[in-house]
Amino acid sequence: MAVNSNPSRFYIGSAYYPEQWPEENWQKDIALMREAGFNVVRLGEFAWSTIEPEAGKFDFDWLDHAIAALAGAGISTVMGTPTAAPPAWLVHQHPEILAVDENGRRVQLGNRCHYCVNSTEFHRAARRVVKALAEHFGPNPHIVGWQLDNEYNRYCYCDNCRKQFHEFLKSRYGSLENLNNRWTTRYWSQTYNAWEQIPLPIGPHNPGLMLEFKHFVTESYRRFQHLQIAELRPKLASTVWITHNFMEWHDGYDHYRMTEELDIASWDWYVGTGHLDYQLSGTAHDLARGYKRRNFWLMETQPGNVDWKPLNNKVNKGETRAMAWHAIAHGADAVLYWQWRSAYGGQEQYHGSLIDQSGQVRPIYREVQQISRDIAKVTDLLSGSKPVAEVALLNCYDSRWSIQWQRHHQDFDYVSHLRHYYRPLAARNVSTDIISADAALDGYKLVIAPALLIVTPQRAANLKAFVENGGHLALTLRTGMKDEYNALLPLRQPGALAELAGAEVEDYYALFDPVPITGEDWSGVSRIWAERLKLRDDATRIIAAYGASNGWLDDQPAITAHTYGKGQVTLVGAYLDDNSQQRLLDRLIRTANIQPDLDTPPGVEARKRIRSNGQEILIVINHTRTEQHIPLPWPVYEHLSGQRFEKEIRLAGYEVAVLTRA
Amino acid sequence: MAVNSNPSRFYIGSAYYPEQWPEENWQKDIALMREAGFNVVRLGEFAWSTIEPEAGKFDFDWLDHAIAALAGAGISTVMGTPTAAPPAWLVHQHPEILAVDENGRRVQLGNRCHYCVNSTEFHRAARRVVKALAEHFGPNPHIVGWQLDNEYNRYCYCDNCRKQFHEFLKSRYGSLENLNNRWTTRYWSQTYNAWEQIPLPIGPHNPGLMLEFKHFVTESYRRFQHLQIAELRPKLASTVWITHNFMEWHDGYDHYRMTEELDIASWDWYVGTGHLDYQLSGTAHDLARGYKRRNFWLMETQPGNVDWKPLNNKVNKGETRAMAWHAIAHGADAVLYWQWRSAYGGQEQYHGSLIDQSGQVRPIYREVQQISRDIAKVTDLLSGSKPVAEVALLNCYDSRWSIQWQRHHQDFDYVSHLRHYYRPLAARNVSTDIISADAALDGYKLVIAPALLIVTPQRAANLKAFVENGGHLALTLRTGMKDEYNALLPLRQPGALAELAGAEVEDYYALFDPVPITGEDWSGVSRIWAERLKLRDDATRIIAAYGASNGWLDDQPAITAHTYGKGQVTLVGAYLDDNSQQRLLDRLIRTANIQPDLDTPPGVEARKRIRSNGQEILIVINHTRTEQHIPLPWPVYEHLSGQRFEKEIRLAGYEVAVLTRA
Amino acid sequence: MAVNSNPSRFYIGSAYYPEQWPEENWQKDIALMREAGFNVVRLGEFAWSTIEPEAGKFDFDWLDHAIAALAGAGISTVMGTPTAAPPAWLVHQHPEILAVDENGRRVQLGNRCHYCVNSTEFHRAARRVVKALAEHFGPNPHIVGWQLDNEYNRYCYCDNCRKQFHEFLKSRYGSLENLNNRWTTRYWSQTYNAWEQIPLPIGPHNPGLMLEFKHFVTESYRRFQHLQIAELRPKLASTVWITHNFMEWHDGYDHYRMTEELDIASWDWYVGTGHLDYQLSGTAHDLARGYKRRNFWLMETQPGNVDWKPLNNKVNKGETRAMAWHAIAHGADAVLYWQWRSAYGGQEQYHGSLIDQSGQVRPIYREVQQISRDIAKVTDLLSGSKPVAEVALLNCYDSRWSIQWQRHHQDFDYVSHLRHYYRPLAARNVSTDIISADAALDGYKLVIAPALLIVTPQRAANLKAFVENGGHLALTLRTGMKDEYNALLPLRQPGALAELAGAEVEDYYALFDPVPITGEDWSGVSRIWAERLKLRDDATRIIAAYGASNGWLDDQPAITAHTYGKGQVTLVGAYLDDNSQQRLLDRLIRTANIQPDLDTPPGVEARKRIRSNGQEILIVINHTRTEQHIPLPWPVYEHLSGQRFEKEIRLAGYEVAVLTRA
Repeated sequence: MAVNSNPSRFYIGSAYYPEQWPEENWQKDIALMREAGFNVVRLGEFAWSTIEPEAGKFDFDWLDHAIAALAGAGISTVMGTPTAAPPAWLVHQHPEILAVDENGRRVQLGNRCHYCVNSTEFHRAARRVVKALAEHFGPNPHIVGWQLDNEYNRYCYCDNCRKQFHEFLKSRYGSLENLNNRWTTRYWSQTYNAWEQIPLPIGPHNPGLMLEFKHFVTESYRRFQHLQIAELRPKLASTVWITHNFMEWHDGYDHYRMTEELDIASWDWYVGTGHLDYQLSGTAHDLARGYKRRNFWLMETQPGNVDWKPLNNKVNKGETRAMAWHAIAHGADAVLYWQWRSAYGGQEQYHGSLIDQSGQVRPIYREVQQISRDIAKVTDLLSGSKPVAEVALLNCYDSRWSIQWQRHHQDFDYVSHLRHYYRPLAARNVSTDIISADAALDGYKLVIAPALLIVTPQRAANLKAFVENGGHLALTLRTGMKDEYNALLPLRQPGALAELAGAEVEDYYALFDPVPITGEDWSGVSRIWAERLKLRDDATRIIAAYGASNGWLDDQPAITAHTYGKGQVTLVGAYLDDNSQQRLLDRLIRTANIQPDLDTPPGVEARKRIRSNGQEILIVINHTRTEQHIPLPWPVYEHLSGQRFEKEIRLAGYEVAVLTRA
Repeated sequence: MAVNSNPSRFYIGSAYYPEQWPEENWQKDIALMREAGFNVVRLGEFAWSTIEPEAGKFDFDWLDHAIAALAGAGISTVMGTPTAAPPAWLVHQHPEILAVDENGRRVQLGNRCHYCVNSTEFHRAARRVVKALAEHFGPNPHIVGWQLDNEYNRYCYCDNCRKQFHEFLKSRYGSLENLNNRWTTRYWSQTYNAWEQIPLPIGPHNPGLMLEFKHFVTESYRRFQHLQIAELRPKLASTVWITHNFMEWHDGYDHYRMTEELDIASWDWYVGTGHLDYQLSGTAHDLARGYKRRNFWLMETQPGNVDWKPLNNKVNKGETRAMAWHAIAHGADAVLYWQWRSAYGGQEQYHGSLIDQSGQVRPIYREVQQISRDIAKVTDLLSGSKPVAEVALLNCYDSRWSIQWQRHHQDFDYVSHLRHYYRPLAARNVSTDIISADAALDGYKLVIAPALLIVTPQRAANLKAFVENGGHLALTLRTGMKDEYNALLPLRQPGALAELAGAEVEDYYALFDPVPITGEDWSGVSRIWAERLKLRDDATRIIAAYGASNGWLDDQPAITAHTYGKGQVTLVGAYLDDNSQQRLLDRLIRTANIQPDLDTPPGVEARKRIRSNGQEILIVINHTRTEQHIPLPWPVYEHLSGQRFEKEIRLAGYEVAVLTRA
Repeated sequence: MAVNSNPSRFYIGSAYYPEQWPEENWQKDIALMREAGFNVVRLGEFAWSTIEPEAGKFDFDWLDHAIAALAGAGISTVMGTPTAAPPAWLVHQHPEILAVDENGRRVQLGNRCHYCVNSTEFHRAARRVVKALAEHFGPNPHIVGWQLDNEYNRYCYCDNCRKQFHEFLKSRYGSLENLNNRWTTRYWSQTYNAWEQIPLPIGPHNPGLMLEFKHFVTESYRRFQHLQIAELRPKLASTVWITHNFMEWHDGYDHYRMTEELDIASWDWYVGTGHLDYQLSGTAHDLARGYKRRNFWLMETQPGNVDWKPLNNKVNKGETRAMAWHAIAHGADAVLYWQWRSAYGGQEQYHGSLIDQSGQVRPIYREVQQISRDIAKVTDLLSGSKPVAEVALLNCYDSRWSIQWQRHHQDFDYVSHLRHYYRPLAARNVSTDIISADAALDGYKLVIAPALLIVTPQRAANLKAFVENGGHLALTLRTGMKDEYNALLPLRQPGALAELAGAEVEDYYALFDPVPITGEDWSGVSRIWAERLKLRDDATRIIAAYGASNGWLDDQPAITAHTYGKGQVTLVGAYLDDNSQQRLLDRLIRTANIQPDLDTPPGVEARKRIRSNGQEILIVINHTRTEQHIPLPWPVYEHLSGQRFEKEIRLAGYEVAVLTRA
């Protein structure tokens, strides 16, 4: 199925809930949207009780009217399937649709995603409403794409789920003997004699069981998602895409598996409390871009503030514009605010919106208007362009889950550790992909595998080939400890990668106190964690060594480098302080011969998007609140102001520039 | 029903549990009570299993004896109905009497208030025991009043409560259509097609549903309370009052609704950890005085310490006396300590008492003795006197609940915000009433409506009339956002009050960092929250403006003043630091021409009680531990010492003076 | 039954789980064990599903092979009964075996100790497997002892437990009238009319009920333990002992009751996070030695690190050796590491081990090897020796539970308070027993009873006799408040001990601020708690008095001393700062004429073990990381190095010396 993954336009808009308002109000909303420069809205994703007010009785008129009215103002529609909000009549008829929580209680009606993702009755009802939507709206030319459900997140522990889990395990393991063996169930007499003895794990359990439960949840959502795609796809034009709006680093399921059947990725970006940290949020954009390895939609983002954090401050004036351009620089092809207008009732009365409860614009509306004007100026330029990276960070949900369950040091967090490698790259404006640890690595110069705990034979082979062919590989802490069943490998770390690294791990240490460490031309500390490396090869070089500390680590190798094939492998046994980490990453950038997109002062981000014709568009964002002077390597044309600059460009606080070589 | 709301005497005493001791011990207790100067005890409020050892079989002899023995020593009785402690036989026979908690579990027998307030069987049993008590003790001349139950506080989530909730909603909304509309249930497909679909909300839910559940709980307790009053009142002499002992700022139900049917208000005052902060505890006394807008009883207070806090220190020597006088100064007509004597068993073995487990007096007994002697000296003087205020703070449970559920900033607390307005008044010895936001406002010069989120048409009309007639009104943050269904009003804040204020709120900001603010002759910061004001009228004056901060607030109006009719309205968009807040309140005091009761050094409180003949009694309390010199505007007679003072009175640490003009 | 409580050898080894590995791997493990100097392993304690793969079908072959192979290498076996891990088939067949937690939910299969200790079906199955083990392995000459179950810890709240609790109460109280009286159930109408009305207490309840529930749990485990002993003992040789591995200060049951039927005590020592604090861990060793008042086994200890803490650091190089010798110095006759080798799967993949998942030794293996070599050198010397103390600290589970439930001050912790008395003794190398408050006191010079809340007539009589006969007794805070039913005594503190103390407590104070205190030649503060003492006797001396503070304590006695019979009683009303506490304990040591084992620099521990022939062995351990010089009172022979020292011995960081007089 070929869909238009790089749509020919840029989109800006918001979520909109016409069902919450009398139809006579819509025109005023649409006029204000037009004035705001909108060209898209998302509709319908919580409207089940309005679309299907009773079982099998559908009312699409209002949606037809809304889509038509919007289209009349040049505004396209993204249609949401409403399955995240099973209505009261459905739950009333089939209470078993409600998920069962970890305490064994049915969740209540009245919030979102209260469904058991494996419920037969829920599947039946979801199929019916999606089928009806597909039939009615599939041909509608104003709909550019579909969003399935909304932010999948619920776990269920009902008896039906447990039975389904047993079926899942049967198909994965074939025999109980195999399962018992893979999970070492003789430990603590966990041996299973029958599939139905296996619990849905609540709290700490056998690591093998815990990992398979995550796999099962992923498969449950895949199946539920597929059920919707199967109804929709045959009714849609080939240019109409299907997506789901994911939640950043949400760990509920394997996002790579979940995005396989989707046409494009999209996600919902909320800063929450505080302010934009672009070196942090960059990982989330790049993660989303990595799902399908193409540009993505920002399906929701905050117009100033959210309402679900303990402290819901508004971002500063100007910051919303910097956020939008930051997203675009990282591959967003659309920016939709959540939400357009404050509903009178419901749980999100305090959430940011562009139009307040009185129907008047909030101050932030003017800023969004400016963003629309920006985008209008460069739509043609940006169309079809995308970020291109020479560096990849490998991401693995299985490794992440395994580590989070067994952190060993409370401050060891998989995602923080990955970000610890991302931040020094971002500080240098090095474009980076975040991709699945199972993805192909062609085209990269440098691959970093942060905490790649689980190393399968295929992963080992891929990495070996990458290095043999000249790639630079950096391995870090906890690498190669486990197999895909979350069992320890019968090997010292980094397992099968030890040959590539020319070194292995003699023992690992959760640290009570930081350990001094000395590198080639720097010194610092390792905190949280340290691994004692042992060279396996005379050619392996020691890049850094530990100083006097707990006795075990004193004078032992901490970081090594090893040439293998045409490439090089760095094994990092330390969790460096920030300054040392920047030194280490600068070394990797230099060694692998990576070109940053631009040198900028601190707080200024620069990212390239490359057009299909090879033209480079440089997006420069001043994330500080003070004017910054950015030296230019060549003369440029700045598209938002229409000005040329020779040696330097000056950007006021939160100011943005879109440059091409003059 | 006319009851003696201003009893002709002052009362001092304690709770007493003769049922826990052999009758032969009582005389020793009563002799010590007499020596302590007691003239009242509270009896019976947990004695159900002693009064009715099995269903329908009553034993009143012991209570007859106890009341008579106390009366013989000149000690009156307050009789408690024992319904807060349903006995084991009752719960055993009807397990459905036990309340169901938020986790769906029946609470256990063995503590207090384990009942479902809506249980039919519990109602039947409560009616029976109260009826029997009323018949037997109603005519007893030694009983001055009755306390119903004890500190209502339990919530129940049983199926019967849920059904009752549906009935409650039916009678309140008439139709589901109306309810769906008021709650905006199309949001998240919450539309209800049948009453029985509506859950009892546990955790976050639709704000409309959450507020109605609070209303339902209030009505449930009202009904339960009424059931007892209906049995009691016909059997009581007209001078015998009925009350319930409430818990300060407890938020379980609307205390204004709950006190409507009671004759007098009473409450239980515990400092808990630390020491008396009279500018804080004053709000609680004034709150209790505001329930019935008359003097109240302090039904329980701590003799030194409690036992239910993480740290249960004793207050300092002398502090208990200062506490008693502080309560009297704020309108207490009785002070009862909890409890008289430490029981051998039960959950409160470590609670403060006057007599220890060995039957000997604790050191604090002597201090209580002194308080009794104090009171004896001024009983005639104080009888029938009461505090009178020119300032009112409006209090609204609906607004409070709504804000607490949706704080938006974790540090925004409704009661703290109200206290933020009370404290500067207390520092100036300005007598203040705390009254329902629906109360009549006649007689006040200044009305402050802290965070009056919910503004009904009637409230708006009352406030308008108040201002038109010359009143000064201060509106603060979050005012006029919502209607009585907890839905946003289709208006900018402060809603219908914007005309009075001559200003409106363009947007509100939960603050990550404090925002500088400059007033007429002061400068400070706004923290937690800020509202950006917009003038609606040329005559509106800017009293304070924001400085450079998040861009949105820079140079915007923060506080405005507006003349309306004969009055004036101040709209406060900032949450000021303490110094600035004192400046603001000083301005309001000055502008509204309020006379403080006395100018005193920091830490010294002065409060007037006014006799029916207009005579002013000035109670002055040194809440510090060091001697304080208080200048006097006129010569006084000090009633505790029997001395006259001309220009100044000196009070040792924790010392008290009761003054009239000489 | 006479068992060899002082085995003729020292043991060193580990837990080993051959069932987790193919039999062909064992020889490599055993060879490494031999090389490590092991002479014991513990087997079988979680192997139920391997031993009895289905109901009644036993497989002992593998265990026979393992025991024989180990014996072939000179390694004895401790056999564990596997009841801590009821297998899936058993739980599947009888789900009621699963315990019910405080939330009313059955615990899940998949972890440990998931059984209801009172389950009839579980008793049946446990008896069957233990009987089979006893019959098969009872005669095995390579088994030196048996461990029952593993770390008893589960609480159950099922209906069967509740019924059993009622039976327990019936037999303890005889009548409900007695129970109601003992518990003061008229308080809050708790009166019980039928046994079945009594709940299993969850959360705060009547103190009497709470204490009896602890007694019931203790009796439940005793019964379960007895069931196993009854099967085992008749099948074992008289030299083969039975034990259970307890967990330090675990408060789940009364350890004195639990150890009555065991032959020797053993416990599992884990430092967890951070490093060894020998003045703290000493209490745990001495506690274990006090169970049976004889030497104990260290059944488990960490080889470097654990995996169940938020931060699982490895102890320093050398620290493991200091730990082993610290345990031996306090009476350990065996040291077993947990565990030998990292299992591929199961919950403890990150736990410290000697052999890693690859089958290679970890660095710590070499250190354990050295410990084995140490022990080999002094086995003959140490055999049959034991620590002997002149000081006893009394420990009482009932007092501890009662205080922990009603701390009154959040920082008052029973065990911390006991350690507060232990630490100054440990700092002076004063050998101290920690024994039951009901134990005989013959032979002690000084007895300290920290927070002995519950004083029964027999305890009072024992202490009186001890003092009359010349003993020095120190009483501390909260002493003598309650009886054995957790009811207040009708006496001032310290109850029946007031006569001995020549003083009583007028009132007690949880402290908000520390209170100054002045002693004979020191001054400091009391924090957390203070008791106001009142002299009852002219001969009572004031050792320390409070300074100005809360008014109640100002200038009141804080610590008193009183001569009684031939002895002396010190009553301590203060919770002193650490320096003052050292001064107080130094005074007690001096007054009671106690001889420290050796004077050492800070951080160096010295402890004697006495041989049956009276010879003193002095174990000296440098717990610091730097060299220490220890002056010697007499010339010594050092057994590990084979050297003689005259005036001084120098120990490097973590170095150990085993000395006898030369």
